[in-house]
Amino acid sequence: MTDRLIQTMRPRFLALFIALFLALLGASSALAQTTYEDILSASEHPENWVTYSGQYTSQRFSRLDQITQKNAKNLELKWVRQFDTLNYMETSPIVVDGIMYVTQANNLVHALDAHTGLTFWTYTYPLPRRLTLCCLRQNRGVAILGDRLFMGTLDAHLVALDSKTGTPLWNVEVADRLGGYSITGAPLVVKDMVIIGVSGGEYGIRGFIDAYDAATGERRWRRYTIPGEGEIGNETWEGDSWKTGGAPAWMTGSFDPELNLLYMGTGNPGPDWNGEVREGDNLYSDSLLALDVDTGELKWHFQFTPHDVHDWDACQVPVLVDMEFGGRPRKLVLFGNRNAFYYTLDRVTGEFLVGKPFAKQTWAEGLDEKGRPIRLPNTFPSEQGTVVSPHVQGGANWWSPSYSPQTELFYLMAFDASTKFFVGEAEYGEGELFVGSFPEISAPDDSFVSAVRAIDPRTGDRVWEHQVYARSTSGILSTAGGIVFGGTKQGNFFALDDKTGKELWRRSTGGKIHAAPVTYAVGGKQRVSIASGHAIFTFGLAEK
Amino acid sequence: MTDRLIQTMRPRFLALFIALFLALLGASSALAQTTYEDILSASEHPENWVTYSGQYTSQRFSRLDQITQKNAKNLELKWVRQFDTLNYMETSPIVVDGIMYVTQANNLVHALDAHTGLTFWTYTYPLPRRLTLCCLRQNRGVAILGDRLFMGTLDAHLVALDSKTGTPLWNVEVADRLGGYSITGAPLVVKDMVIIGVSGGEYGIRGFIDAYDAATGERRWRRYTIPGEGEIGNETWEGDSWKTGGAPAWMTGSFDPELNLLYMGTGNPGPDWNGEVREGDNLYSDSLLALDVDTGELKWHFQFTPHDVHDWDACQVPVLVDMEFGGRPRKLVLFGNRNAFYYTLDRVTGEFLVGKPFAKQTWAEGLDEKGRPIRLPNTFPSEQGTVVSPHVQGGANWWSPSYSPQTELFYLMAFDASTKFFVGEAEYGEGELFVGSFPEISAPDDSFVSAVRAIDPRTGDRVWEHQVYARSTSGILSTAGGIVFGGTKQGNFFALDDKTGKELWRRSTGGKIHAAPVTYAVGGKQRVSIASGHAIFTFGLAEK
Repeated sequence: MTDRLIQTMRPRFLALFIALFLALLGASSALAQTTYEDILSASEHPENWVTYSGQYTSQRFSRLDQITQKNAKNLELKWVRQFDTLNYMETSPIVVDGIMYVTQANNLVHALDAHTGLTFWTYTYPLPRRLTLCCLRQNRGVAILGDRLFMGTLDAHLVALDSKTGTPLWNVEVADRLGGYSITGAPLVVKDMVIIGVSGGEYGIRGFIDAYDAATGERRWRRYTIPGEGEIGNETWEGDSWKTGGAPAWMTGSFDPELNLLYMGTGNPGPDWNGEVREGDNLYSDSLLALDVDTGELKWHFQFTPHDVHDWDACQVPVLVDMEFGGRPRKLVLFGNRNAFYYTLDRVTGEFLVGKPFAKQTWAEGLDEKGRPIRLPNTFPSEQGTVVSPHVQGGANWWSPSYSPQTELFYLMAFDASTKFFVGEAEYGEGELFVGSFPEISAPDDSFVSAVRAIDPRTGDRVWEHQVYARSTSGILSTAGGIVFGGTKQGNFFALDDKTGKELWRRSTGGKIHAAPVTYAVGGKQRVSIASGHAIFTFGLAEK
Repeated sequence: MTDRLIQTMRPRFLALFIALFLALLGASSALAQTTYEDILSASEHPENWVTYSGQYTSQRFSRLDQITQKNAKNLELKWVRQFDTLNYMETSPIVVDGIMYVTQANNLVHALDAHTGLTFWTYTYPLPRRLTLCCLRQNRGVAILGDRLFMGTLDAHLVALDSKTGTPLWNVEVADRLGGYSITGAPLVVKDMVIIGVSGGEYGIRGFIDAYDAATGERRWRRYTIPGEGEIGNETWEGDSWKTGGAPAWMTGSFDPELNLLYMGTGNPGPDWNGEVREGDNLYSDSLLALDVDTGELKWHFQFTPHDVHDWDACQVPVLVDMEFGGRPRKLVLFGNRNAFYYTLDRVTGEFLVGKPFAKQTWAEGLDEKGRPIRLPNTFPSEQGTVVSPHVQGGANWWSPSYSPQTELFYLMAFDASTKFFVGEAEYGEGELFVGSFPEISAPDDSFVSAVRAIDPRTGDRVWEHQVYARSTSGILSTAGGIVFGGTKQGNFFALDDKTGKELWRRSTGGKIHAAPVTYAVGGKQRVSIASGHAIFTFGLAEK
C-alpha cells in the first residue's frame, strides 16, 4: 500500500482495507497485537515501540541504526498531526505494526497511521465536570496488550479500549476523584496485568499502586505507598499524618522479569512545603519501591529525600541496567532524582552504590554511605522565603531519561535553577488542596541552565553536557545509530552525538516540547516521533 | 546574525539587538518599513510579501525562482510556529525584511522572525464579549504601511499597530458590532489610505467599503454597496428591503494605479436563501465594483448573480492582468466566482468578455451576451428542498486564486458539489441573524471533488486540473520557478507543475489548510509559508 494509495483512498475504504488486512493476517501473525512476550523481547523488535519506555528496562534505547551520526543532518519532516486542544501534549506514542496510539489532554486516544499521521479512530473519554488536579489536564500515554489499549483517566479510572476500533471494553474506578485522586501517567502491562499508580500528592491522598486483570478489569492487588497502622514505616509519620500523607505514584514503572520485581518511584509527602505536621522520614514518599509483581509485596525500598519539604517527588522512570560494576556483573537501577542527585542502586537488594549531584543543589552537603542526604542548615521553607536549589520542578522531573548500552552512559535533561520556598499552614479537607504554601520562582526560567547530561553510572560523574536554550522539559531517546534525541521548550527537536553531546541536527516544531521521543520503523524505514505543542511530529531520512 | 546566534540569544537581548539594528538602519534605509512605492513595485522585490495578495494586481505570483520544478522534491520543513487556539488559521502572512506578521483568530497579531519562526511580539486585541458573527472567529491578515500595521477586528473596528513593538496607535469603530457588523478580511493599503469592507451579510446590514487615513484613522470616504433612496440601483430592491440588504465586502480588493481604480467584490443580498421579500436584481450584491480610490465613487459594476438566493457571494479576490486579448493588449480582470462561473472582464469599462463554468453547476443554462446568467427553472430554494450545484460554499470561495504571467493561466481551487436549499421566513431584528432557512449539505464533503484548475483567461477553458483528496479550501500561489502551490483540508501542502498540474512534492502539515501560501526570501533563500490548522509552516530547499 503506497503512500500515494493511502493518501488518495477514502477513509471508509481505507478502514475496511485495514480491517480486512488485519483479519487475514490475524490467524497467522501477531500483527497489531502485542503479547507479553512481545514486550519482554521489545529490544529485539525495534520496529515497534510497545511500552511507555520502549522496554521493561526503561532504557528508552532503540537498536534501530538507519539514522546515524553521519546522516542525521538529512532528517526531514515526514508528517505532522495537529490536534484541537489548548493543552500541550505530554504523550509518548505506542507504535505497533505501523499503527501509532497517542493520547491527548482530557483523555482522548487517537489511533494514527504511523506512515502518514492520518487518523483511524479517536476515542473521547467522558470526563465528569469536577476533577481534583494539581496541574494540567494531561495524559502521558496508553499501554497495550493483545488488541487492547489501557489508559488511566483524570477522574482516576482505568479504561480498556479495543485497539482496532477504539471501542471501550471495560472501565473501573481506581479511586474516588472527589477524594483528590487522578491519573496522568501511562499504565504498564506486565504478564496479564495492568499496573497503574495515582496522582494526588497535593490533595492529601494516601498513595497506592494497583494491578488489574487486563481481560476483566478486576483488581489483583493494591500496594499502599504509606504503611498502615502497625506496619513497619508507619512510625515515620507523626500522629495521623500518614492518612493524608500523599506519596502518589504518578509515573510509569519498570520491570525485571528475572527477579519478578516491579520498580516504581513515589511522589512527595503531603502537605507539600510544610513538614511540621508530619515529623519523621515519611516513608515511602520520595522513594523507589521494588514490588513482587504478582502480589504487590514490598521487597525493598530506597528513600531519596526523607521528610521532603520541597516537592521533590521521586517521579523519574527507573532505568534497569546490567553491567560490570566493581569488578563483577551487577543488576543495577539508575535514577536521576528530582532532588538533583543521581543514584546507582543494586536492584536486587536496593543497596546504595553511587550518588552524586547532576544538577545545581544547595540543600545537602552530600550523601552518607547509605545514600541518605546530609542536609545543610537553613534550607527548609521559611516565613521570609528560603532560596534553594534545585528548583521546585527539580534538577530533573518525570521527563524520561535514557541509557545506551553502546556508550554505557545515562542521559537525562537536567535543570540548574532555584526556587524561594515559604512555610505556611495546611488544613486538610477531602478533595481540597492540601499544601502549606506556594513557592516562588526566584528568577525567569531563561536565566537558568537546562542541559542534556551524560552520566557514567559507575561513578556518577558527568561525561558531557549539551546546554539548551531556553529551558527544556523534554524526555530523551538514545539509539544504536549513536544518537541522543531531545527537545526544548522553545520547540526545537534535536539530535546529539551520544559520545560527545555535539549537536548533529535540529528542527523547530514551534510548540513546547514536554514529552519524550520514540523511534520505530514503517515500511522498513526508521522514524522518530515526538509530541510538541498541540501536535505529533514525525521525522525520517530524506529519500531522494 | 546566524541561526545559531538567534537561537541562543536571550529574548530580551534579541529584542534589544533588533531594536538597535532597526534604529541604526532606520535613517538610511526602509528596513522593516513599507512605503506606497514598495507596494506599487512589489513584483520587483519578491524577497518581501508586502500586501495580502502579494501585489496590487492580486496575481499572487512571485518572481522568486530558486524553487523550481526540478528541485521542488527537495523542499523540507524549515520551521513551524504553533499557536494556542482552537480555531484554525486563515491568515495570509505579510513579510517585510525578514519579519513575518500573521494574525490569529480573535484578532491576535504576531511578529515572527521569518528565519526561525520565533516570536518578537504578540498583540491581543481586547474583543468585547458580544459579537455578531455568521461564521468563525477568523481573521485573514494585516496590511502594512511605513512602520504601521492595520487590522480589521471582529467587533468591526480598524486598528493601527506599531510594527516594531505591536503597540496600538489608533483604533476606530468602522461600524456598530451590535448592528450585525464585523470584519474578518485583511485591509488593503493604497497611497496613504487603508481600505476595508465589512462582513454581516447574514445580519441584515447595509454593506459598505471605507477608506481611512493611515496616519490618523480619520475616515476619507464610504461607499455603500447598496444604493440609497433616489440613487440608481435602489429600484432593484423591493420596498425598504435595501435597508437590510446585506451585500457586505468582506474580502481584500485589488488596485490599478494607472486607472486609479479599486476593485472589490461584494457578498450576498439579505436575507440569505429567501429572495421573496427583496424582489429585483438587488444591486450591488454579488458584484464586482470598480471605485475611484480617492473618492470611493463607483465607476462601473458587474453583477455576477442577480437576485441571489443561494449565498453565492462575489467574495473572490479580483485578479488584474494585462494581456493580448482579441488581437490587442487589454486591461483585464479575472474572476472565478462562487456561482461556479469563471469571468474575464475589461477592467477599464467592466465589459463582459468571457464567461464559462469552471465547476459543477446546475442552476444556469449559461450566460447571455452581457454575462447575465440564464437561470434554469426549479433551482430556487423550496419547501421540500432543492438540490443545486454549486455548493452553498460555492464552486470557489474567498480562497485566493493566482495568475502566472509565465503560463498566462489563471489557477483556482474549485469544488464540484451540491447543496439542498430550503425556503423559509426571515424576520429582521437589529443584530439578529436574518436568513430564510438553513441549507442542508446533500452529501459528505469527501463524496465531492476538489481540484486545482488552470483556466485560460482568453477562453475560460480548462487547461488542466489536479484533483485533491479530500476537499480543499486552500488558496493558490504561483511562482517563476514554474510552480503552483496549494493545500488540502487533510493537511497536505503540495507543489504542482504550473503547465500540467502534475504533483512535484507534498508534505503533511496535519491540520486543515484554509489559507493561502506566500513566498519570500530570508538571507537570500526562498521560503514558502502557509497557515495550517493552528500553526504556520515554512518550507525551503534542503541545504546539505
